[in-house]
Amino acid sequence: MCELLGMECNVPTDIVFSFAGLAARGGRTGHHADGWGLALYEGKAARIFREPAAAADSPLARFVREHPLKTLLAVAHVRKRTRGPVCLVNTHPFARELWGRQFVFAHNGTVKNVRRLKLGRFHPIGTTDSEYAFCALLGAIAGDFKAYPRAPSELAAAVAEHGARIGVGGTFNFLLGDGTQLIARCSTRLHHIVRQAPFARATLADEDVTVDFAAVTTPKDRVAVVATLPLTKDERWIAATPGTTWVFRKGRLAATFGD
Amino acid sequence: MCELLGMECNVPTDIVFSFAGLAARGGRTGHHADGWGLALYEGKAARIFREPAAAADSPLARFVREHPLKTLLAVAHVRKRTRGPVCLVNTHPFARELWGRQFVFAHNGTVKNVRRLKLGRFHPIGTTDSEYAFCALLGAIAGDFKAYPRAPSELAAAVAEHGARIGVGGTFNFLLGDGTQLIARCSTRLHHIVRQAPFARATLADEDVTVDFAAVTTPKDRVAVVATLPLTKDERWIAATPGTTWVFRKGRLAATFGD
Repeated sequence: MCELLGMECNVPTDIVFSFAGLAARGGRTGHHADGWGLALYEGKAARIFREPAAAADSPLARFVREHPLKTLLAVAHVRKRTRGPVCLVNTHPFARELWGRQFVFAHNGTVKNVRRLKLGRFHPIGTTDSEYAFCALLGAIAGDFKAYPRAPSELAAAVAEHGARIGVGGTFNFLLGDGTQLIARCSTRLHHIVRQAPFARATLADEDVTVDFAAVTTPKDRVAVVATLPLTKDERWIAATPGTTWVFRKGRLAATFGD
Repeated sequence: MCELLGMECNVPTDIVFSFAGLAARGGRTGHHADGWGLALYEGKAARIFREPAAAADSPLARFVREHPLKTLLAVAHVRKRTRGPVCLVNTHPFARELWGRQFVFAHNGTVKNVRRLKLGRFHPIGTTDSEYAFCALLGAIAGDFKAYPRAPSELAAAVAEHGARIGVGGTFNFLLGDGTQLIARCSTRLHHIVRQAPFARATLADEDVTVDFAAVTTPKDRVAVVATLPLTKDERWIAATPGTTWVFRKGRLAATFGD
């Protein structure tokens, strides 16, 4: 299985603290040694770093941690292979352009009978069930709307609906970023936290690292973090009920949909 | 204006030597300080590194040089802004998925009346004429074929034809990689060299770096390099006649099309 990490904020924030915790699970404290990826939005597109190798030992993952980039929206993933060989084209997150913006997707779980799903204009490059499901999901969305809807929640509602359909019988926890919002679906396991004033200290569960958020934030900052499992051991993370889709905008939980 | 660099080989090769020469032009010996990008194919998709900043000073560009990745097909670019502000979404190379493979595009020049071009399923994320032209080109190709053609030259011929049409009245030098071949169009300026046995020494024109290719190759290796201007000062580069489209496969010039 894999682990997901997403961040969505109201001010540009670096993801180094959370990514350090995730990267540790990518081969050191965890067993997700088959790849890692990190997408950092800048406007309507993302810089994507990904490698079919363990994050814990990766010079590129270390570079990303040592040269933090601030972003409003990030999607990260560490992979433990279940379907498809270990190679670049099978490494999350996956990305496609629709309506002049980049959609970025990462998945945890296994989608059942994925080849039965109808594909539209998007086709998988690799051989994972994850990328296939992403192409089916985005193709369905492309059929539902002519352009990015004025109300981003309309898009999120459609993603929740298609997510429930595609995930039937399998495990379809995923993160989908569209440059405006982070859509996070819980099929079995997903947690989130919104950090805001008054900020406190937090200590990673997987690395001996503590950060005092009060020292690096302003009182208006809000940062939502979503992860498969809580990344810190001294904060209160909220567990999603299976079948829930969360939508984060401007660092807050903006909408929740049930299957 | 910008500078292009492409490499296409019959054995996995690192692009560090040529990229060092290009990166030097990205802000030190050249004035292409507004961004750089490098796409390295691994199968049908590419790792893409890009930054809206000078390559010569970039820690990421240095990282890429210090951690060479071997590839059969690479597309690189350094940017001097002519249209569109300096930001990630306006930084070459641009990429889109079609038929389950990633197409990567970099452009030198300015396309005239680009907004009059018909777009198909692909839409620009940024504001450059380059990305717009790429979307129009790829949309046209998507209309010409149902799937990637059995003979890759058929695709290249269509690219040459649409390239001539889109480039009319403007400057449309470009590189297009599709995972199988490198298509390089010369509107005004483009050079190439095929390095093969017997290999010799070469010295970069922009950096005090010499490499003895005989020491790092086998007799069967073939590497085609395409660049806006010759990157070395002691090799014989071939200049393209304006209106020429070159196609490189397995390290050799496989086809040439005229406008």
